Amino acid sequence: MKGIRQLAEQLGISIGTVSRALNGKPDVAEETRRRVLDAAEALGYVANQSGRALRKGSTGIIGFMMQTGPEITGQGDTFFMSVFDGVQTVFARHGLDLVALLCSSEENPHDYLKRVVARGFADGIILSATRRHDARFELLAKRKIPFITLGRSLTDVGQPWIDLDFEGMAETAVERLVAKGHRRIAVSRPHDDANLGYVFVDRCREVLARHGLALAEEHIFRSTPNEAGGYQIARDLLACKERPTAILLVNEVSSTGLYRGLNEAGLVPGRDIAVIGRQSPHSHFLSPRLTAFTLSLRDLGIALAETLLATMPAYAEPYADRPARLLWPMTLVPGESDGELAEDAHVSL
Amino acid sequence: MKGIRQLAEQLGISIGTVSRALNGKPDVAEETRRRVLDAAEALGYVANQSGRALRKGSTGIIGFMMQTGPEITGQGDTFFMSVFDGVQTVFARHGLDLVALLCSSEENPHDYLKRVVARGFADGIILSATRRHDARFELLAKRKIPFITLGRSLTDVGQPWIDLDFEGMAETAVERLVAKGHRRIAVSRPHDDANLGYVFVDRCREVLARHGLALAEEHIFRSTPNEAGGYQIARDLLACKERPTAILLVNEVSSTGLYRGLNEAGLVPGRDIAVIGRQSPHSHFLSPRLTAFTLSLRDLGIALAETLLATMPAYAEPYADRPARLLWPMTLVPGESDGELAEDAHVSL
Repeated sequence: MKGIRQLAEQLGISIGTVSRALNGKPDVAEETRRRVLDAAEALGYVANQSGRALRKGSTGIIGFMMQTGPEITGQGDTFFMSVFDGVQTVFARHGLDLVALLCSSEENPHDYLKRVVARGFADGIILSATRRHDARFELLAKRKIPFITLGRSLTDVGQPWIDLDFEGMAETAVERLVAKGHRRIAVSRPHDDANLGYVFVDRCREVLARHGLALAEEHIFRSTPNEAGGYQIARDLLACKERPTAILLVNEVSSTGLYRGLNEAGLVPGRDIAVIGRQSPHSHFLSPRLTAFTLSLRDLGIALAETLLATMPAYAEPYADRPARLLWPMTLVPGESDGELAEDAHVSL
Repeated sequence: MKGIRQLAEQLGISIGTVSRALNGKPDVAEETRRRVLDAAEALGYVANQSGRALRKGSTGIIGFMMQTGPEITGQGDTFFMSVFDGVQTVFARHGLDLVALLCSSEENPHDYLKRVVARGFADGIILSATRRHDARFELLAKRKIPFITLGRSLTDVGQPWIDLDFEGMAETAVERLVAKGHRRIAVSRPHDDANLGYVFVDRCREVLARHGLALAEEHIFRSTPNEAGGYQIARDLLACKERPTAILLVNEVSSTGLYRGLNEAGLVPGRDIAVIGRQSPHSHFLSPRLTAFTLSLRDLGIALAETLLATMPAYAEPYADRPARLLWPMTLVPGESDGELAEDAHVSL
């Protein structure tokens, strides 16, 4: 602890304050914290920081695990960067830093996380891209590392989670399309075993069944979560034996590719086929305007961070009333892309 | 070192091999490395990893600093995720992990980096979004932390850098537009003090001057690096006293917004105004096809990682022949968006 004593003497403040500043406690004035960190840097306190991590298991860093790779490139931007903004807003209150743990698509996510955990540099973890079965949950629970998942899984170790309300999205969108006369409604789902695909398709099927309608296998499009995936959906859709009159896109970056593919075939969303999707920075530029579900990604990030901190004793107090598990609502913003079923489509039914 | 001895005994391999595996040396078979890491995890070697970091200054983690925030959200996806893929390919050879250091747009990048450095968890750093003057370089040099910059700056501490060849882009594009009869050529640049804006605009001005042409102040559009920025360029362009007949976009995500804005005004790229930009996953979907500069982001990531490792004694040997500083070439892929100057535009000159 010699380093801390030196720091305190040099700055003329108490050892306790220096310690609290270095440990990112919220009860230290920002200016004091900066003075302490500046002096710590000048005195070469880096090595002692590692020592502190060793003694206290506290590094001041929270990791957000996400996958990288050509396939998912499209999603990184429109989704995670905005969520990060919200997460950082919360962490800034406590002097915590967010780092993105980038798991290459060429690597098994569980092996990757195991190695990151062994490096021991994160005080807590936020997991995304949850799978139907997800061994990462058990790994973190076993190691007693505080974590929250953005997404659910059949795997459940009692951890907190926040997930988008894909059931609510399915309810609202399918009811809306059925009310407009559509009977052959297609849906998209991720190409991999992302849990949200199961949740979303199952609920779409249930709502359709309520109206005596079936979800045909050929009307479930597995799609990579990027624009090229949306383009492929358009091509697959045109190749259907029975062409659907409406499609519901679960991924927020598919719509631009779908529009392009439909456009090439001379089909106009809202006139020739109804499309409901999710808003993204790119979907705003679509014409006709996309009927789309929207959510505040920044608020989602804030909730993720606060719910995680609620499980970490050093930070929990202000967040005690946070629900540990939450379905995050999405709101439908009507556009021009999901018109009534066209008359000639009725004829061909 | 008791931990290592236990590991070696349990696995029946030498202490030296265990040590090399834990330290990410490349001369350990991947299977052996995995066995060692698995056993290290099972034995609770985490704390010793922090101890190791303390003793050796080695954490096995390289940080890639990037900015987050609503303004730059658009760029995260189309650029960095692909660069990360290349970086990870190299780091995987050495058991190094890449983490993204996310600096909120609300925070001063220098203050952020200072704090990250004080946490002492990264063995090396890759800096992006280099500014005209960039105090981060001096901070890392003073702390003797190996680093490379993606981008140049007037600040120069002798560090290695790789930058896109914006001069080459300016030469090729301006010469091409002039050869097609264009005389009023506009350019875009970042809204902030990113170094690339100065490099790019200066060279455009030089090439134009070579042909006796001036770059009008009202034809230099400062733009946020996202689609909305491109849309704003279209509006600003339409409001010019003397409308340019061609525009050159330095950012890869501006083109979709520009197309949308031109489209709303009834202008078709390639017919009514020449557009040259940069390829992105989204620009592929533009119609008419964008004439655009392309580069392999994955190869760029590989070069960044190898050039950084060349400066780190533990990893340098295979990369000794890497140039420490490099302009990364971009290739023009002709599309349909930069036609000859229209006849009626000639008349209005």
